[in-house]
Amino acid sequence: MSILVVGSVAYDTVETPVGRAERVLGGSASFFSVAASFFGPVNLVGVVGHDFGDPQLAAFRGRPIDLEGLERMDGKTFHWQGRYSLDLNSRDTICTDLNVFEFFKPKIPARYRGSAFVFLGNIDPKLQLDILSQVREPKIVALDTMNFWIEKSPQLLREVIRNVDIVVINEAEIRELTGEFNLVKAARKLMRMGPGRVVIKRGEYGVLHLSDGEVFAAPAYPLETIFDPTGAGDSFAGGFMGYLASRDGAALTEMDYRLATIYGSAIASFTVEAFSTERLQGLSREEIDSRLAAFRTLTEFRV
Amino acid sequence: MSILVVGSVAYDTVETPVGRAERVLGGSASFFSVAASFFGPVNLVGVVGHDFGDPQLAAFRGRPIDLEGLERMDGKTFHWQGRYSLDLNSRDTICTDLNVFEFFKPKIPARYRGSAFVFLGNIDPKLQLDILSQVREPKIVALDTMNFWIEKSPQLLREVIRNVDIVVINEAEIRELTGEFNLVKAARKLMRMGPGRVVIKRGEYGVLHLSDGEVFAAPAYPLETIFDPTGAGDSFAGGFMGYLASRDGAALTEMDYRLATIYGSAIASFTVEAFSTERLQGLSREEIDSRLAAFRTLTEFRV
Repeated sequence: MSILVVGSVAYDTVETPVGRAERVLGGSASFFSVAASFFGPVNLVGVVGHDFGDPQLAAFRGRPIDLEGLERMDGKTFHWQGRYSLDLNSRDTICTDLNVFEFFKPKIPARYRGSAFVFLGNIDPKLQLDILSQVREPKIVALDTMNFWIEKSPQLLREVIRNVDIVVINEAEIRELTGEFNLVKAARKLMRMGPGRVVIKRGEYGVLHLSDGEVFAAPAYPLETIFDPTGAGDSFAGGFMGYLASRDGAALTEMDYRLATIYGSAIASFTVEAFSTERLQGLSREEIDSRLAAFRTLTEFRV
Repeated sequence: MSILVVGSVAYDTVETPVGRAERVLGGSASFFSVAASFFGPVNLVGVVGHDFGDPQLAAFRGRPIDLEGLERMDGKTFHWQGRYSLDLNSRDTICTDLNVFEFFKPKIPARYRGSAFVFLGNIDPKLQLDILSQVREPKIVALDTMNFWIEKSPQLLREVIRNVDIVVINEAEIRELTGEFNLVKAARKLMRMGPGRVVIKRGEYGVLHLSDGEVFAAPAYPLETIFDPTGAGDSFAGGFMGYLASRDGAALTEMDYRLATIYGSAIASFTVEAFSTERLQGLSREEIDSRLAAFRTLTEFRV
């Protein structure tokens, strides 16, 4: 079943302790789409400027990523520049040039409106709500957000949250959103707002996946070298939703959601091995499945 | 097979967001001993003052904990007072009165010298070395340490590390000790100093257990209320070593070490449910095994 993703498509300039990349492909919808495309068709809605050309589009080509919804607007493409700390656990934003992204009004092409899975990337909750009004009875809607929207548009954000099935959010954000330090309490509070599932991203510590009565803890893959953490969260979401969509209409079980969490973690572990979506470009399904096996080895114990 | 533990026995005064406990039983050897005693006999070596009486000893009584090595010295018992932050992730030490602990010179009773498993709690590396010279060919020696010794006695600490099998250490400490941010690299560097295994404690994120060619990630149990994190690390070590010792001379396999890691994590998850060793006092082996099953549910996924 196909997935609709709405989010940013951007140029990233990134400095990490191991190198620097200048104006490479970035943005939540980019990482999400490439990650999800390993599992099935993706419909991408985003906006780029006139400076976004064929070399950048190459990352999406040859994959089941539909680009009809990638609007080209007069102006420059969103550009983010950031620098990571030595331990990669924090980053400073050096500049954020929203450019055409400031005027982004997602228009969902008619062909996309029946997408069974919808991922609302981290954008203005007003736009997220508007997207929900344009789609027809999706099977699963998931949402990402960030501290900026939690602080700036708390009411609108709550309205979107009420209407989604899954919230994918990082640790600091769920604490800020719910006012609860304890993650189990925070997740329960968030689920009382509407969603049946909460996926808490904890960076190098992995993911905590909660639903009514169930908790699943997935570690991050312990890599010896992390090249660039940018896009790990969106790649996780892409792998997660991609796997769910690939179950093709089967009633999704708790085990499906758990396996989706591991697939998401596996894809994210590849993303951070290089800048941008570079590592994902040449990635094979065999490599993904072999990392899945490595996740099993990483977590397995027997009584 | 029996375990020898050498470490502190103390009074703790602890403030957490949910309450306060005044002069309750604390210290690394206390938490370790009670935790390990669920699995088999423990020989405790430590020191207390004249103010440490029967009510405090009650925590050890009725358990297979030998107290011949608990020296009573003229003076007051070690007292630590601390206050945890709202999110429990950091704590301020309000006072540390070493008292008799300042003059601690571990004397290993003759009966203890053949202990098959030895745990060197977080004390001066000079004393840790001295203990190793008093024991006879233990099967497994594990060591804990802290930033204070890493900074104050780096050479002596390296000498102890060269002579142990397992280092149990927290995330910040292994980074400081090895100068490596990446935990996989840090662990490999530490293993090149001597030990075959490194167990990295990551607090609410669980444990990363590394040996040559193997990595095992165990989550912490996601509790809704953490009453007091004090002693979690030492309880973990007690459960971990306790389970290994209970294998009774069998050649220890990777799976034994993994299961030991989960037993340690399970015991630690009970410790933090109350102040001091309170929660461990009434704990049954059935409760421990049922939490072990909960750890399986927490981490299980199927392809």
